[in-house]
Amino acid sequence: MSDQKLDVQQEHQQYIEPLGDWVRSHDCCTLTAADTGAEVCLMGWVQYRRDHGGLIFVDLRDRQGLTQIVFSPDVNPAAHERAHIIRSEYVLAIRGTVRPRPEGMTNPGMKTGEIEVYVSEWKLLNTSRTPAFVIEDRTEASENLRLQYRYLDLRRPRMANNFIVRHKAAQATRRYLDELGFLEIETPYLTKSTPEGARDFLVPSRLNQGQFYALPQSPQLFKQLLMMSGMERYYQIVRCFRDEDMRADRQLEFTQIDIEMSFVDEEQVMAMAEGLMARVFRDALGREIATPFPRMSYDDAMARYGVDKPDTRFGLELQDVTHIVRGSNFKLFATAELVKAMRVPGGETMTRKEIDEFTEFVKIYGAQGLAWIKIRPDEWQSPIAKFLSDTERAGLKEALGLETGDIVFFQAGAPGMVNAALGNLRVRLGEHLGLIDENAFNFLWVTDFPLFEYDEEEKRYVACHHPFTSPKDGHMDVMVENPAAARARAYDMVLNGYELGGGSIRNHTAEKQRRMFAALGFSPEEAEAQFGFLTQALEMGAPPHGGIAFGMDRLAMLLTGSSSIRDVIAFPKTQKATCLLTQAPDSVSARQLRDLGLRLRETGKEAAKDAASTDAPQG
Amino acid sequence: MSDQKLDVQQEHQQYIEPLGDWVRSHDCCTLTAADTGAEVCLMGWVQYRRDHGGLIFVDLRDRQGLTQIVFSPDVNPAAHERAHIIRSEYVLAIRGTVRPRPEGMTNPGMKTGEIEVYVSEWKLLNTSRTPAFVIEDRTEASENLRLQYRYLDLRRPRMANNFIVRHKAAQATRRYLDELGFLEIETPYLTKSTPEGARDFLVPSRLNQGQFYALPQSPQLFKQLLMMSGMERYYQIVRCFRDEDMRADRQLEFTQIDIEMSFVDEEQVMAMAEGLMARVFRDALGREIATPFPRMSYDDAMARYGVDKPDTRFGLELQDVTHIVRGSNFKLFATAELVKAMRVPGGETMTRKEIDEFTEFVKIYGAQGLAWIKIRPDEWQSPIAKFLSDTERAGLKEALGLETGDIVFFQAGAPGMVNAALGNLRVRLGEHLGLIDENAFNFLWVTDFPLFEYDEEEKRYVACHHPFTSPKDGHMDVMVENPAAARARAYDMVLNGYELGGGSIRNHTAEKQRRMFAALGFSPEEAEAQFGFLTQALEMGAPPHGGIAFGMDRLAMLLTGSSSIRDVIAFPKTQKATCLLTQAPDSVSARQLRDLGLRLRETGKEAAKDAASTDAPQG
Repeated sequence: MSDQKLDVQQEHQQYIEPLGDWVRSHDCCTLTAADTGAEVCLMGWVQYRRDHGGLIFVDLRDRQGLTQIVFSPDVNPAAHERAHIIRSEYVLAIRGTVRPRPEGMTNPGMKTGEIEVYVSEWKLLNTSRTPAFVIEDRTEASENLRLQYRYLDLRRPRMANNFIVRHKAAQATRRYLDELGFLEIETPYLTKSTPEGARDFLVPSRLNQGQFYALPQSPQLFKQLLMMSGMERYYQIVRCFRDEDMRADRQLEFTQIDIEMSFVDEEQVMAMAEGLMARVFRDALGREIATPFPRMSYDDAMARYGVDKPDTRFGLELQDVTHIVRGSNFKLFATAELVKAMRVPGGETMTRKEIDEFTEFVKIYGAQGLAWIKIRPDEWQSPIAKFLSDTERAGLKEALGLETGDIVFFQAGAPGMVNAALGNLRVRLGEHLGLIDENAFNFLWVTDFPLFEYDEEEKRYVACHHPFTSPKDGHMDVMVENPAAARARAYDMVLNGYELGGGSIRNHTAEKQRRMFAALGFSPEEAEAQFGFLTQALEMGAPPHGGIAFGMDRLAMLLTGSSSIRDVIAFPKTQKATCLLTQAPDSVSARQLRDLGLRLRETGKEAAKDAASTDAPQG
Repeated sequence: MSDQKLDVQQEHQQYIEPLGDWVRSHDCCTLTAADTGAEVCLMGWVQYRRDHGGLIFVDLRDRQGLTQIVFSPDVNPAAHERAHIIRSEYVLAIRGTVRPRPEGMTNPGMKTGEIEVYVSEWKLLNTSRTPAFVIEDRTEASENLRLQYRYLDLRRPRMANNFIVRHKAAQATRRYLDELGFLEIETPYLTKSTPEGARDFLVPSRLNQGQFYALPQSPQLFKQLLMMSGMERYYQIVRCFRDEDMRADRQLEFTQIDIEMSFVDEEQVMAMAEGLMARVFRDALGREIATPFPRMSYDDAMARYGVDKPDTRFGLELQDVTHIVRGSNFKLFATAELVKAMRVPGGETMTRKEIDEFTEFVKIYGAQGLAWIKIRPDEWQSPIAKFLSDTERAGLKEALGLETGDIVFFQAGAPGMVNAALGNLRVRLGEHLGLIDENAFNFLWVTDFPLFEYDEEEKRYVACHHPFTSPKDGHMDVMVENPAAARARAYDMVLNGYELGGGSIRNHTAEKQRRMFAALGFSPEEAEAQFGFLTQALEMGAPPHGGIAFGMDRLAMLLTGSSSIRDVIAFPKTQKATCLLTQAPDSVSARQLRDLGLRLRETGKEAAKDAASTDAPQG
């Protein structure tokens, strides 16, 4: 920004006037030819100013849209003269008359394109320095620059619309649940730390030094306690916190639509959740969603798609071909625990470069390489074709329904790796080949989840959902005898390959909950120390209950077609967990740490900040 | 709890059955004689069980109410026989037939008092230990016991109703604001610490060791940034945090209805807020509230009521009598900066003991005593009457409109003390004398607040509202020349003597905001370091804006006629800042502290908890 520009803006500050008793009559997205002759008052930001000889044209922008306003010397010479100071992002209030645009000048691409407003008087409400980037949907500004000047970024119509849609989704959620008798009940943010799941954010207690609150990873226990409190139907759109290393598109704090119901089974929770999504998509987007949603067992999802959240907008399903290649001369196939194949119709035209790229891609998931066969009219072209017997070829051809022009990808090895590699490659190919209908919303329930998963690091079974999830009927014994085979009364809602929500029916008797803790390796003493208040509550008339939680940020992202949840969060953190606008987190004063009974470990100091800063004036 | 009772409950666990496909048909507050003959399915908790010869009667309770169910050997002998196990707070699902109660047995005090349901089959869904207290509105349980067993406490109908009313108030708020074009936008909970106002809760950053987030005391800066982002109308029902020493009826975390609008002045914010309250009281209580609300300047409120949040449901206004007693022989009156009187009609019958009690009461506010005069038919009875001249008596009689049977209280000294002592005594007397219509909702706006107040501890002026509040027109200069006389564009909404909400029009130009920081004693460098991002944003096209915030907990308390905000918060903290149910805050593991780069100051240890606890199994 040049000094000269700065001076102009500073000089213009003298023209700023108070709003006074001016009241806006319309937003900038409303006026049409039907309003011709109306006296209106508009307020907003200057999108463009164009000086056309005697007339000055300004596109005035507000949250809703744009209206063209015209300063004419014929209407008010002084007002016109003063309009020469107007610059981009200046804030104006104008009074004027609606006129139809001259013939040939209408703009059918703009809601107010039939009219313009001739300004009779106007006020400069504020000036603006030249913004760091132009306020338009298409921007070349880096995300960091956008986050640093978030207040400019959010003025872009696309961003404003994201928050309008998110707002509508939240309202639709509340109205729907209110109509069904759910109560919105707030749960605490200053809670108890439990060494379960992800890492907690801790909040030092000043009044109880040496002790800490934890920010909740979810209100799971509180919503269950509300069922034991007889509230019967609870919901909350609530912030949750996880102190995780920031991976792409994760935030330290995120928002959940949190729901719990008493006296219900899976069917009732799932029907309620389907109705919720239908309502949200109708109210926020005007889209009708068909219910009930299709269902697929976890085992089926893993078999056909390699992942537990399949994107069903396109095919390319995986197939288990282990039995076909069991005796193969290709050693890797012959000895692998699992061999799966994915047929890609028409993929025979893929270049070596593309295949190399996909080979690199699957290595992310632990694969060592990527076997492939191109089905040519004359031959099977492939580095591995020579190892395959005629029987194997025939078997593959029949099982996969191979046709000329296909390419087939293979993965062999441990089931976890095979499924992850091919399942994720499938999604990558779906995008790469343009197989995905970007306008489709494919909902899916995934059910019959395992109760436990084996944690390789901790060398033990941990709860797949959480330790309060009920095993399926009869699986109470299975979970002891064969933990891997035990199935949970849990269900995930999947949309276009994203896990949108998940829930379960809970253990509602103390006995079941105690057996679950034991199966997870808690001694009775440990279970009591950590979750004693829960099992005690379960002994005092806990009703059967279950629920579900939806990721609100992800829902808003999918509703708005955004590529990142950061585009539907007003003030997100970066991947380094910082706020580029306010510079949080920050050092604190020595006195603040002393009050909390804490020292920084590394420096041994009480605080990194100069102690003198505590004497800064306060307001 | 005796071992015997425990054994009974444990023995009964064998009868627990899964819910299966049973679906509730009605709640327990719905069935009437019109439903006679209907087959119904109810679920809930056992309020009472009475064995009357051949029949067993149970009052079944859910969130909505009670229904009497009857187990009869004539209907299903086995079901009747098994019903002998039923105890208080057991959870039942029953199927049965609605019958009118026999003549003379109807209960008009109960919504379902015309009918009873004869049970054809039933399931025991859960047992219960004998609860720590009986689940009834009237309870003798201490608050600590109620908080420890909060899940029992919340089953009491009065508590359940509190959360139903609070829910309705929140829904009404959202619907009203949605209709007016407000967007609900979430602001961060992990923010930057600012040494302004109350003490922040700090959250150590693991990814940026030595740095801290702060939990927001309010989203003030973010909501202003949203106005600079062009969002125009924002609201949020949002949690706020203050690490204050817990006084009566304060919580570490509390909920605010937070609102901000662009392109408006005070009138539009206040009209919006009045409409909001009208909507909330209509939807939550079915009460019509008259708007607009009366208004009173801050100076008027202090003069007439001694406080800035007057309860206008009763009289007993204060009067300044300084000029009348200026030359009195009663030295205290003659020399005091301010002498005020409060006439209490009919108060002449007050006993010495009552007066002594009030004298003690005003000492809380720094008064050294309490002067009084009883107006008797024959004389003015008073320890101070003898000092008053005839002129002074005549002056007081005329100014206060004294009549036989009155008592008058006086307070003399510094204005702050005089107003606080008499203003609070006034409320105490209003309650004591039964002058308050408990059914009335008296709303009031208090306006024209001082911009600054003098902080005796810090020996300087601080912002009365907050440093972002705009001075009144023309007071920009006053604030420098005579800070005490400067008035703010601030307004408080008062209900029945409680501050329900407060807000202001903000400084929307960088220049005004910089002058305000300077008036508060910030150097330009300090202002830049702490609020640079705000003044920078104000230079980039900030619109005129203002807003208001309401205390949601207090609103819910007043709506439900509760005596404490703890009765409208599901899981509140005690005055020692602890949760008696979950035992938060708690020690954390050494590893957790090490990950955060922190040490406890006092012990020098990394954590108070045994390091072995980090090895506890996780689930």
